[in-house]
Amino acid sequence: MLETKIIVDSKPKLKNPVCIVGLPGIGNIGRIAIGYAIQQLKAKKFAELYSPNFFPFVMIHDNKIHVLRNEFYFYKGGKRDYIFVIGDTQSYDQKGHYEVAGKILEFVKTLGCKEVVTIGGFGTGKVVDKPKIYASATHDSLVKIYKKHNVNFNLTGKITTIVGASGLIAGLSEHHGMKGICLLGETTGYPIITDPTAAEAILAVLQKALGLKIDLKKLDEKVKAMHDFIKKLETIQQQAVEQIKSKGGKKEELKYIG
Amino acid sequence: MLETKIIVDSKPKLKNPVCIVGLPGIGNIGRIAIGYAIQQLKAKKFAELYSPNFFPFVMIHDNKIHVLRNEFYFYKGGKRDYIFVIGDTQSYDQKGHYEVAGKILEFVKTLGCKEVVTIGGFGTGKVVDKPKIYASATHDSLVKIYKKHNVNFNLTGKITTIVGASGLIAGLSEHHGMKGICLLGETTGYPIITDPTAAEAILAVLQKALGLKIDLKKLDEKVKAMHDFIKKLETIQQQAVEQIKSKGGKKEELKYIG
Amino acid sequence: MLETKIIVDSKPKLKNPVCIVGLPGIGNIGRIAIGYAIQQLKAKKFAELYSPNFFPFVMIHDNKIHVLRNEFYFYKGGKRDYIFVIGDTQSYDQKGHYEVAGKILEFVKTLGCKEVVTIGGFGTGKVVDKPKIYASATHDSLVKIYKKHNVNFNLTGKITTIVGASGLIAGLSEHHGMKGICLLGETTGYPIITDPTAAEAILAVLQKALGLKIDLKKLDEKVKAMHDFIKKLETIQQQAVEQIKSKGGKKEELKYIG
Amino acid sequence: MLETKIIVDSKPKLKNPVCIVGLPGIGNIGRIAIGYAIQQLKAKKFAELYSPNFFPFVMIHDNKIHVLRNEFYFYKGGKRDYIFVIGDTQSYDQKGHYEVAGKILEFVKTLGCKEVVTIGGFGTGKVVDKPKIYASATHDSLVKIYKKHNVNFNLTGKITTIVGASGLIAGLSEHHGMKGICLLGETTGYPIITDPTAAEAILAVLQKALGLKIDLKKLDEKVKAMHDFIKKLETIQQQAVEQIKSKGGKKEELKYIG
Repeated sequence: MLETKIIVDSKPKLKNPVCIVGLPGIGNIGRIAIGYAIQQLKAKKFAELYSPNFFPFVMIHDNKIHVLRNEFYFYKGGKRDYIFVIGDTQSYDQKGHYEVAGKILEFVKTLGCKEVVTIGGFGTGKVVDKPKIYASATHDSLVKIYKKHNVNFNLTGKITTIVGASGLIAGLSEHHGMKGICLLGETTGYPIITDPTAAEAILAVLQKALGLKIDLKKLDEKVKAMHDFIKKLETIQQQAVEQIKSKGGKKEELKYIG
Repeated sequence: MLETKIIVDSKPKLKNPVCIVGLPGIGNIGRIAIGYAIQQLKAKKFAELYSPNFFPFVMIHDNKIHVLRNEFYFYKGGKRDYIFVIGDTQSYDQKGHYEVAGKILEFVKTLGCKEVVTIGGFGTGKVVDKPKIYASATHDSLVKIYKKHNVNFNLTGKITTIVGASGLIAGLSEHHGMKGICLLGETTGYPIITDPTAAEAILAVLQKALGLKIDLKKLDEKVKAMHDFIKKLETIQQQAVEQIKSKGGKKEELKYIG
Repeated sequence: MLETKIIVDSKPKLKNPVCIVGLPGIGNIGRIAIGYAIQQLKAKKFAELYSPNFFPFVMIHDNKIHVLRNEFYFYKGGKRDYIFVIGDTQSYDQKGHYEVAGKILEFVKTLGCKEVVTIGGFGTGKVVDKPKIYASATHDSLVKIYKKHNVNFNLTGKITTIVGASGLIAGLSEHHGMKGICLLGETTGYPIITDPTAAEAILAVLQKALGLKIDLKKLDEKVKAMHDFIKKLETIQQQAVEQIKSKGGKKEELKYIG
Repeated sequence: MLETKIIVDSKPKLKNPVCIVGLPGIGNIGRIAIGYAIQQLKAKKFAELYSPNFFPFVMIHDNKIHVLRNEFYFYKGGKRDYIFVIGDTQSYDQKGHYEVAGKILEFVKTLGCKEVVTIGGFGTGKVVDKPKIYASATHDSLVKIYKKHNVNFNLTGKITTIVGASGLIAGLSEHHGMKGICLLGETTGYPIITDPTAAEAILAVLQKALGLKIDLKKLDEKVKAMHDFIKKLETIQQQAVEQIKSKGGKKEELKYIG
C-alpha cells in the first residue's frame, strides 16, 4: 500500500447527507460521540479506510487480526441522511494528516455530501461539569446555524489552532466544494481519559443542529465498553512510542517486534 | 492531499510579469515587504497554494478556519505586470522545500513570467540603521541591473548559503527557463523580530529596479498589524515544536491535540 | 528506485499455492524456519524484491556486492504448491512496512495464492524447552485448521499487537481476497539470539497444517550456518544505528561511509 | 520538484561507454579522482541531476546561486568512451539514495552503458603511504579484470558493508542489465580530510583497467583547488547539521534561515 485507500463495500444512495467525523483525540470526544451515535442508530458500515500513515502494526482484537483503520457508516434519517466517520487512529506521520483528510473529503463528496462536521476537544486543564462547545467553520452560514444552539465561535484568546485531522478535514472541505465546521468540546485535556460528558454535550448540539435523534440514556454504559478498546489502543501506541524512545529514538527498531 | 496543489480562482492575462516572492524567514523581511506592497497597490489575489509539507494544523483567524497557505496576487503596473507570492509558512519538511518551489515556478511560468525575485534576510547579529541589501542571481544580466541600485553581489566571506524557499525558488527558476535573483536584507537575525527597516530597504530596491511605485509612508503602521498575525503564527509553531520536544521529540504525538 | 519492486525471473504455474513468509524478527524464527525449509526442499528461487525502504547500504557477501532484498521461492508439493518468502531485512521506514506488505500480497495473488502464513516471534523474556505456538488469523476457517494442531488462538492478556511485516502481511491479505494467519513462536525475545527450537516448533505446525514434508534432523546444523549470516547482518545494522546515534541522531551522516 | 530529475543538455553518442562515479564520501576519494580526470581530459558536461533528496539550500559559488547537483560528463577516448558522474552531495534522505542511484543507472543505460564503476573510501583510522584498493563487484568477469591490477577482492574481516551511493549504484546496476564494481581506496577515514594519495591510487587502477590516459603530475595542485570547494560545502553542511542539533533536533527550523 503506497497511499491511503478506501475499500468500499457498497456505495449507498444518500439524501443530502452530512458527514460527521469522530476520530481519536483529546478526551476522545469525537470517537465516543460518534461511536455511540453509530450504536444507537444502528448505522450501517459501508467502507473502510487504510493508510500507510497509520502505525505499522496490527492489533489482536477478539482474537482476530485487526489492521488499523477508519470506518464509514451511513444512517438514513428520513429528512436527510448521515455519514459517520470513526476510527482507531489518526495519521502517525505529519504529512499523512493531509493525505487522509483529502481522501476522506474526496470520498464523501462522491456521496453527495455538502457539509462536514468534525469533532475534537479543547483541553483546559480543568474539570468542568457543563462543558462548553466551541467551534470554527469555513462559512458564515454554518456559524449562524450552530450559534443558535449555544455553540461559541468567539475563540479569541482561547483557541488559536486545531492540530491534526479534525481541523484539516473541516478546513480542507472548502477545497472540495463543501462547507466545514469543527466542534470542540471543553475537556480537561489528558488524551488517556475519555470524556463522556463532553461527548454528550457534542451529541446534544448535533441533535439540535442536524436533527439527529439519539437516545442519550445509555451513553455512560456504552462509553465504558468503548473506553476499554480505546484505552487498549492508546496503551499499545504509548508502549510503541516508549520503546522507540528507550532505544534511542530510532523508528527503525520497531521492526524487531513480531 | 498527496502533493502541493495550487487552486486558481481565475488566471490573469499578464504583460511581461515579474514574480516577487516574500515568505516568512529571518526578520520576516520578505513577508512584510510583499504584504505591504499588496496592501498599498491593492493587488488582487487569484490563486492559493496548499501543501502537505506545511504543518498539519489549521489556525483560527478572525474566528474562521484558516488552512496554512501561500497566496498569489497580481498587479497591473502599466508598463509591466507583477505577481506577488506571500504566505503563512514555508515547508515543514526538508524535501517539501523542493516540491513547493517547483510548483510555484511551474505555475508562474504558465503566466508568462520570465523573472523571479525572492526576498530573504541575512542575519548579522547586529542592529543597523541603514541595512544593506545583498543578492545572488542566476544570470549576469540580473546582476547588472541590480548593481545599479546599490545591491551588493560580493558575498565572499559573508554569505555562503541560503536555506529554504527563497534560495531554492531563485536557484531553480533557471530549470524552468526563467531568471532568478534572491535579495537578502541585512537584519539582526532573530526570526521572531519582524524588521520593517530592512523591508523598507528591499522595497526601495524593488521600486528602482522593477519600476514598482509604492508609497512607503504607511509602512511602519501597516507592519504593526501584519506583525501581530505573523507573531501569532510563530508562537503557535514554536509551541508545536516545544510540545514535540517535551514529549520526547516524537512527531506523532502532535496528533493528540484537537 | 522510487518504490518497492519485484524482479521476476520466471513466473511458475502453481497449484493452489500457499504463501509462507519468514522474515527477520524476534528470535529470527521465521527466517530460520523458512530458510531451512527452502534448503531441505530444494525450493527454487523465482523472484526478488528490492525496496527504497530497506537500509541504503550493500553488504559484501562471499566477496560479491549484495543489495538487501527479500526472495520468493516455490516448491511443488504434489497435492498443492508452496511459495516461500524470505529476506535479509524488513522495512527501515515505518510507512515502508505497508508498501512492502502490499507489494508481496499483490504479487502472490497473481500466482493464484489464496492463503498467506506469516511467522513471527512472541518474546516472553523466559527460556522455554517446548515453545508454544500462538496465532491470529483473518478468517475462522483458518483458526479451525490450526487449532487442531495445538496452535493457541487465545491471546487475551498475552499479545495485543504484532508490529511490522508479519502482522501487516497477514492482516492485509484480506484486502487482496486472500486469507491470512500469523504464527508466533514463543521465544526469549532478544533479536540477536536466533531460536532454532521455536523455529522447529513452527515447522512442526506447518508440516501438519499444510502437508509440508520436511526432515527436521539437520535443523540444528543448518541453523548454525544461517545464524552466521543473520548475525553479520544484525551487527551491521546495529553499527549503522549506533553510528547514527553517536553522531547526534542524524540520519544524513550515514552517507559519509563509503 | 517531486522527484530526482536529470536535465540533459544534449545526449552524446557514445561507443561502449563505461560510467565512472565519484561522489563525496570518506576522504572524498571519488570526488577528487573524477574531478581531476574531468579537468585533465577536458571532459564535456552534458547533463545535471537535481533531487529533492539533497539539502534544501543553495550555495553562493563565485557570487552566483548554485543549486546542489550531480553532473554528467563524457569523454571520447578513442577505443571506447567514458561517462563521468561527479557531484556536490549525496542524498540527505536515506530513501533518497535508492532514488538517486536508480535515476543515474536508468540514464546511463540509455546512453549504451554496460559497465558502472563507483569509487568510495575504506576508512582504516591509520595513515598509509601506499593505499591499497579494495573492491566488490556484481560479476566475476569484472573481478577477473581488476584483480590483474592489484585490486583486492578479499574483503573478509575487513569490509562488510558499503553505505550510500557508491555501494547502491554498483549493486543496483545489475537490475538495469549492467555490470557494477565499487572501488574503495584505503584512507584514514575522516570525511573532512580529502585524500589525494588514495585518489591517485584509484586513478592508477582506472588507467590500467579502463585504458584511461590521465597525466597524474598536476594532481596535488589541482586537488588543492577542489579541496577548497569541497571543504566549504562540508563546513556548510556541518553547520546546518549543528544548527539542527542545537535547536533540538528539529529539521523544520532550518527554514528560518534565509
